[in-house]
Amino acid sequence: MNPATDVTTDAPTDQLCTAPSAPISNPTIDQQLRHRTIRQYQDKPLPAEVLDTLLTVARHGATSSFFQHFSIIHVTDPAVREQMYLSSGQPYVGGTKADLFVFVIDLHRNAEIRRAAGKDLEPLTRTGVFFQGYQDTMIAAQNMVVAAESMGLGTTYLGSLTNDVERVIEALKLPDYTFPAVGMLVGYPDQTPQFKPRLPRALTVGENAYPELGEHAEELAAYDQTVQEYYDLRDANNRVDSFSNQVANNLGKGPFVESDVRAVLLRQGLCLK
Amino acid sequence: MNPATDVTTDAPTDQLCTAPSAPISNPTIDQQLRHRTIRQYQDKPLPAEVLDTLLTVARHGATSSFFQHFSIIHVTDPAVREQMYLSSGQPYVGGTKADLFVFVIDLHRNAEIRRAAGKDLEPLTRTGVFFQGYQDTMIAAQNMVVAAESMGLGTTYLGSLTNDVERVIEALKLPDYTFPAVGMLVGYPDQTPQFKPRLPRALTVGENAYPELGEHAEELAAYDQTVQEYYDLRDANNRVDSFSNQVANNLGKGPFVESDVRAVLLRQGLCLK
Repeated sequence: MNPATDVTTDAPTDQLCTAPSAPISNPTIDQQLRHRTIRQYQDKPLPAEVLDTLLTVARHGATSSFFQHFSIIHVTDPAVREQMYLSSGQPYVGGTKADLFVFVIDLHRNAEIRRAAGKDLEPLTRTGVFFQGYQDTMIAAQNMVVAAESMGLGTTYLGSLTNDVERVIEALKLPDYTFPAVGMLVGYPDQTPQFKPRLPRALTVGENAYPELGEHAEELAAYDQTVQEYYDLRDANNRVDSFSNQVANNLGKGPFVESDVRAVLLRQGLCLK
Repeated sequence: MNPATDVTTDAPTDQLCTAPSAPISNPTIDQQLRHRTIRQYQDKPLPAEVLDTLLTVARHGATSSFFQHFSIIHVTDPAVREQMYLSSGQPYVGGTKADLFVFVIDLHRNAEIRRAAGKDLEPLTRTGVFFQGYQDTMIAAQNMVVAAESMGLGTTYLGSLTNDVERVIEALKLPDYTFPAVGMLVGYPDQTPQFKPRLPRALTVGENAYPELGEHAEELAAYDQTVQEYYDLRDANNRVDSFSNQVANNLGKGPFVESDVRAVLLRQGLCLK
């Protein structure tokens, strides 16, 4: 383990102000390590060539068995965006600051191709195929994030987009065999957030077997303190809570994770078995 | 749409031999557009500093609600790797060529934290929380892919790793509230594959609404021909099949997508509702 990159002791303040580092440096890696979620953007849409570049990169990631089970919807109509805002509830989803994309797990396109070929649609109803689509969709999304950040843009993954998932399905005219995985804002940053410390490597990386937490209680305690320090730095008047307290008190709270996701999947014809 | 980057007409042969291009170029974007799956590797393990760099980048992607619901297992024990090979069935998963990683959707760590805090584990059983974990896990995986490729390494996403998912769960000692999403090889390439053409943008990107296939039959026909040409070029003696024919004839075939994924999820305590 590289001590410079893993917060396993009480992190000095300056560790929160500088990006994490790795033994090997190049422009791509350095940019990936500078990743932060941006929540304030300038009111400036993406130029056409930036948009084209982002979508081209997103479309050229790996795809499970070559089936390309994803679609991307670029939301430019204010009325549609308002619906996305109403689902998300996050103020930065509304309005015009940053471009909004929705990454959709899409088995519908291939259902249509199978229908035209006179083949049954049963495979599209399987959880295993849906998971392949989830992979394709997130690979496309993260490819777009890295490309955007390489151009100096900021990004926000919007898990909140699916808070009212049926509203999203209706507003974007998502047909059967589709499910919106995640939204994303891409735009010109209007803030420079601190780097948010990640769980130490010992807790998230195992060698040949699952890394049980029980063996790493001290690292977790140190990390909890680091996270508290991060929040103090970010905003002394705002939430100051350790990682463990967030897990204990916040996990499972929120419209999406409280919603009946499975019922929506079934209505979309997905994950029937 | 940028005609240089989208295969919407019969692609000339040289389009299959050069990487797709985008209006904006930088080292990160150019590398992302050069992505190809590598299936032949040199017999050369990753040096420690490369391994540290890959894991650091993977750990520093975005994470849903900060819960970091993923773990990465680096398989270095030949006996464990043999089990991964037996599950996958792909020859390149066995042996020692390229390093093998397993990306695990991991709600177990936070279950332990909640248990220690005297909180109930019910939230970990919800599909919505599992999906947050799926996102975190794939963001970490794709971040590693981009970092690896930026160092000149090759990668293989191994959907096949979970063909016999219970074997993987046992071999890696994956506890309840975990599920292996995908495997990955990272190593020194020993081949230079052609670029595999992706679906045209008109089929995978919509503006404000889902891009229905019905409006793009001509683009699909042209793409089908491009894909056939790609297989001709790749290996004249091997599978020559259009995209549509693959969807019609191959989708839903294979051990993972034929397996009862849902039963395994339920046994792991996941997606109960």
